[in-house]
Amino acid sequence: SAVRVAILTVSDTVASGSGPDRSGPRAVSVVNSLSEKLGGARVVETAVVPDEVEKIKDVLKKWSDIDKVDLILTLGGTGFTPRDVTPEATKGLLEKETPGLLYVMLQESLKVTPFAILSRAAAGIRGSTLIINMPGNPNAVAECMGALMPALKHAMKQLRGDKREKNPRHV
Amino acid sequence: SAVRVAILTVSDTVASGSGPDRSGPRAVSVVNSLSEKLGGARVVETAVVPDEVEKIKDVLKKWSDIDKVDLILTLGGTGFTPRDVTPEATKGLLEKETPGLLYVMLQESLKVTPFAILSRAAAGIRGSTLIINMPGNPNAVAECMGALMPALKHAMKQLRGDKREKNPRHV
Amino acid sequence: SAVRVAILTVSDTVASGSGPDRSGPRAVSVVNSLSEKLGGARVVETAVVPDEVEKIKDVLKKWSDIDKVDLILTLGGTGFTPRDVTPEATKGLLEKETPGLLYVMLQESLKVTPFAILSRAAAGIRGSTLIINMPGNPNAVAECMGALMPALKHAMKQLRGDKREKNPRHV
Ligand code: NA
Repeated sequence: SAVRVAILTVSDTVASGSGPDRSGPRAVSVVNSLSEKLGGARVVETAVVPDEVEKIKDVLKKWSDIDKVDLILTLGGTGFTPRDVTPEATKGLLEKETPGLLYVMLQESLKVTPFAILSRAAAGIRGSTLIINMPGNPNAVAECMGALMPALKHAMKQLRGDKREKNPRHV
Repeated sequence: SAVRVAILTVSDTVASGSGPDRSGPRAVSVVNSLSEKLGGARVVETAVVPDEVEKIKDVLKKWSDIDKVDLILTLGGTGFTPRDVTPEATKGLLEKETPGLLYVMLQESLKVTPFAILSRAAAGIRGSTLIINMPGNPNAVAECMGALMPALKHAMKQLRGDKREKNPRHV
Repeated sequence: SAVRVAILTVSDTVASGSGPDRSGPRAVSVVNSLSEKLGGARVVETAVVPDEVEKIKDVLKKWSDIDKVDLILTLGGTGFTPRDVTPEATKGLLEKETPGLLYVMLQESLKVTPFAILSRAAAGIRGSTLIINMPGNPNAVAECMGALMPALKHAMKQLRGDKREKNPRHV
């Protein structure tokens, strides 16, 4: 069955109506364009919240615990400014961390800009949901998803407990 | 004196007798083959446990606190399936994290397979014991040990408190 | 306004008067030499403490909470010996982790020596202060600062809450 994806834009500006959401719609089209490679993926939820820990956590909890989506991408709030709290909100909810995903996203982003090291993105598993923080820059989702793609379909199968997927032969 | 190594296979399948332990014996022979480069290393303990946090922790605690081995390698249980809990069991016991070891193991494993990013391996120090999670794939130990070898002998000396080893000159 | 930097040498040997501080003065001159590229940076505090968690924490807290310096560099205590506790002291105080900084410092240090993987350095934000652990080797500060430089000025601006700096265009 299809991979159900939810996308959360974290931005004071967008949440207050002071500016358009440039990242969210872009992320939706990136996911749609990669759908086939993921064995069928579709965006089932989107939302916008301000840069506030509790508001971020509320949405992440609803999407993982109640709606049980397979994959949540958060957009924004990963930098060094005082309002950037998305990684802290996320880490407070993770049951398992997935550092390898952060490694390849950083490695790939560094090819585009040295400012990539300012992303403090977190990633991990809550229940059967994979949660990945991505930077707010509208280009970041395509770059980060590109870095994850070679292993992401496999990750989603493992999350569902597919034993055959547990120890893939090395290529 | 020799580096005393213990190897823990973490696998429901092996622990229940439903399948052979392909990783454990392989790890023993990898350690033996690297013994000289490590200044003398020998495997003093091996065990198999199912993918259960408390059972993993019990063995890790016995080997580090009572038997005081120098190095523990765990094999398996580092992936994304619901039963994969080796990193969580390990992190619950670490007094100090050693992220550099994870970095080079991941970097090296990525040369073999993009699925390497699905390893959630942890590594660190408890007392005078270094504990390193490795994937369950039988090839993983050789790859990961290869990545660590240039610095592992030195790490073991530092663990024993050898002051001369503290700030090695850069080559 | 200028970036205010504080430098903490962590070393039993130096703190006890048994040996000279080779790393601290070197770090001061590295910061001075990079001052212009950082938009003006000057060292406003230096100190030496032994490898003890509480003594390290006391200085880090004073410098971040009371003196509100912009950047703290710690030197030493990041290795595998029993006395190496700088990362643990630091992590106990961080409100936000900054893993990307560790990634590029490690990547750069690995070009110099494979022993770089034995650095267990932590880095992150407390209040408006960025705290970065660096190894005690006198060459390490120049190497690590070199790795951080392309993004460090930007990091300092984000820390001060400069919104224009939040989502820099990818180059
Ligand atoms: Na790399």
